[in-house]
Amino acid sequence: MTSSYSDEHFMQVALDLAAAGQGFVEPNPMVGCVLVKDGEIIGQGYHQEYGSHHAEVEAIRSLASADDAKGCTAYVTLEPCCHHGKTPPCTRSLIDAKVSRVVIAMQDPFAKVDGGGISQLRDAGIEVVVGVLESDAKVLTAPFTKLVRTGRPWVIAKWAMTMDGRIATRTGDSQWISGPASRSEVHRLRSRVDAIVVGMGTVIADDPMLNARLNSSEYQGISVQGSVPNRIAQRIAQRVVLCHQRLPSQQSRLMETAKQFPTLLVTTPLVEEAELVNLESLAAKVLRLESGDRESMIGATLDYLGENGATNVMVEGGGEVLSSFFSANQIDEAHVYLGPKAFGGTGAAGPVGGIGVEKVADATLFELHDLDRFDDDVRLVYRRKPASK
Amino acid sequence: MTSSYSDEHFMQVALDLAAAGQGFVEPNPMVGCVLVKDGEIIGQGYHQEYGSHHAEVEAIRSLASADDAKGCTAYVTLEPCCHHGKTPPCTRSLIDAKVSRVVIAMQDPFAKVDGGGISQLRDAGIEVVVGVLESDAKVLTAPFTKLVRTGRPWVIAKWAMTMDGRIATRTGDSQWISGPASRSEVHRLRSRVDAIVVGMGTVIADDPMLNARLNSSEYQGISVQGSVPNRIAQRIAQRVVLCHQRLPSQQSRLMETAKQFPTLLVTTPLVEEAELVNLESLAAKVLRLESGDRESMIGATLDYLGENGATNVMVEGGGEVLSSFFSANQIDEAHVYLGPKAFGGTGAAGPVGGIGVEKVADATLFELHDLDRFDDDVRLVYRRKPASK
Repeated sequence: MTSSYSDEHFMQVALDLAAAGQGFVEPNPMVGCVLVKDGEIIGQGYHQEYGSHHAEVEAIRSLASADDAKGCTAYVTLEPCCHHGKTPPCTRSLIDAKVSRVVIAMQDPFAKVDGGGISQLRDAGIEVVVGVLESDAKVLTAPFTKLVRTGRPWVIAKWAMTMDGRIATRTGDSQWISGPASRSEVHRLRSRVDAIVVGMGTVIADDPMLNARLNSSEYQGISVQGSVPNRIAQRIAQRVVLCHQRLPSQQSRLMETAKQFPTLLVTTPLVEEAELVNLESLAAKVLRLESGDRESMIGATLDYLGENGATNVMVEGGGEVLSSFFSANQIDEAHVYLGPKAFGGTGAAGPVGGIGVEKVADATLFELHDLDRFDDDVRLVYRRKPASK
Repeated sequence: MTSSYSDEHFMQVALDLAAAGQGFVEPNPMVGCVLVKDGEIIGQGYHQEYGSHHAEVEAIRSLASADDAKGCTAYVTLEPCCHHGKTPPCTRSLIDAKVSRVVIAMQDPFAKVDGGGISQLRDAGIEVVVGVLESDAKVLTAPFTKLVRTGRPWVIAKWAMTMDGRIATRTGDSQWISGPASRSEVHRLRSRVDAIVVGMGTVIADDPMLNARLNSSEYQGISVQGSVPNRIAQRIAQRVVLCHQRLPSQQSRLMETAKQFPTLLVTTPLVEEAELVNLESLAAKVLRLESGDRESMIGATLDYLGENGATNVMVEGGGEVLSSFFSANQIDEAHVYLGPKAFGGTGAAGPVGGIGVEKVADATLFELHDLDRFDDDVRLVYRRKPASK
């Protein structure tokens, strides 16, 4: 029997392993698993890629002999699945391997599991403990949980602003506010999300590509920190333009590259249909909405992306789009970069436009989740404060 | 003979000691001193308070016997003084104590020393090394250096803004953006500076007191971290109002408390002289300037404060005043607090107003000096990037 301290220790190892799947496993959840006998780790694994083995199976396969699992404790960051999906149920693998105890960080919110895995293990006579490092597991799994519970992807807003809160000078000049190390980090984020959303203001002002551009050294294979590989995902995010009244020009970089990088135009009846057909012929997909209301535009876009398996969506602005996402209460996470310079100017734009809140008490509240330094830049990662708190 | 590694190690101890004088010694510089014999610290001291013993004398006094200093190495963060000021010259104390080697972090920029102390020590046959951890010493001593070189105090701008760069909602609501831990830290800063500067916009909007308000537990005596005491200064900062066209009302908190807390009104010919006389009768001091130009107002105010011995000045806003300080290139340090909430709104104010810069390349550049977390708030401490870099 392992002590409670040890349970947390081994679960932390499993959580670190799980995190290495970020950007590779979605829309599956990240999961890690550690097998422990006599206080020693004898096997470990994690879900490495969508469609590949689950963490529990990886851990059992890592053993010198499958018989070694007999009588061990399995630490799993998420309740083992009990249904046939792309792979056989993990509960079966654990039962067949004759593990005697399973420690689980959190129950699987997915409707086809949701406690069923725990019951199957207990029915097979295995001791099951649930809730060790549960809150850490929930933080890690939050995008998956939002998707399976609401059908909508996790929304990550990202902006870079000066130390005095500006995203451009009064004349609109904005390159660059943050330095090369920060910008690489943004490209790493782009390379693990499923979609990148902008409004037409940004398309006109910046003519962006919105793809992940990391140089070859940044992509350079797999570096290993301890036993956990540090890989860079190479997901190709769908580029999503919210076209409230205007459409991108055929000469924009987005349209010129729409054959290489999937591009979705979300439109309202306010845009010109003839021009839209031209853009479709350039390989742009179109989601035609029946209403021009900005908030319902956000909801419809997220529903569509969720139905198509998007787990993480990044919103890169501009101010009107971010304001609509805030109004719709659909910003789950914000990555705020601060550059070490001041622009000043009452006419210089901040990151979030629109009307804004009337009172401090009306503001959306966040929790500081991470704080990192990139040279003289700082990145603050916030998550929306749970309503219950 | 001590190794180069050891020199840096002992100088770091001396620098940590020196820093304990912050808020107590100004307008003198913070200085720390460590005496080392056979690789062991045998004595240490720091300049504890304006008018009291210098660091070198404190270190010698800490010895069991004054004879112990004979043949030791003295590590001093600033060149020992060679002139009679409030105390006898420290070079004399070191020579009399028969130390054989003096390691100095940086030369004293004060005109009456400026290399003279080093010469005196060398003339007495003492080996002198200059420049160990020099850049750290310069960072610590920067406010003193600015004051002795330019006659102007070190200017610390402070603002609190939301994660989207706003200091108030579109309706002007601003309480609170940062939490209690951050606000305590601001009061600790107020308690160590010599003056706090605001503009009339802030006086009218917030009717502030601008004094340091720390509750008794926060003032609670001296806590000791290792061998360095952690004291809280109790300086009473002069409250300075830049009255460009308007004057505070007689009923403002600033004017009602002007008899308890020194208050300076800096005025231009644009204000009403009759009302000014009324405010003087409430104990406000007045600095009457002949020009209404905002930038020269900043310069004249800093010159006046420097002449009166102010080493550190804090600027608490509002946007117009901060903008004038930026335009005049007189922000040496900025303490930026970020609260975990978003206001949005194109009409919600940012911290620095005015016209602002036209191009990114025109922006004042800073270096990130410190990064601290206070609950879900973050404080970023910046220092202006040296022009030579």
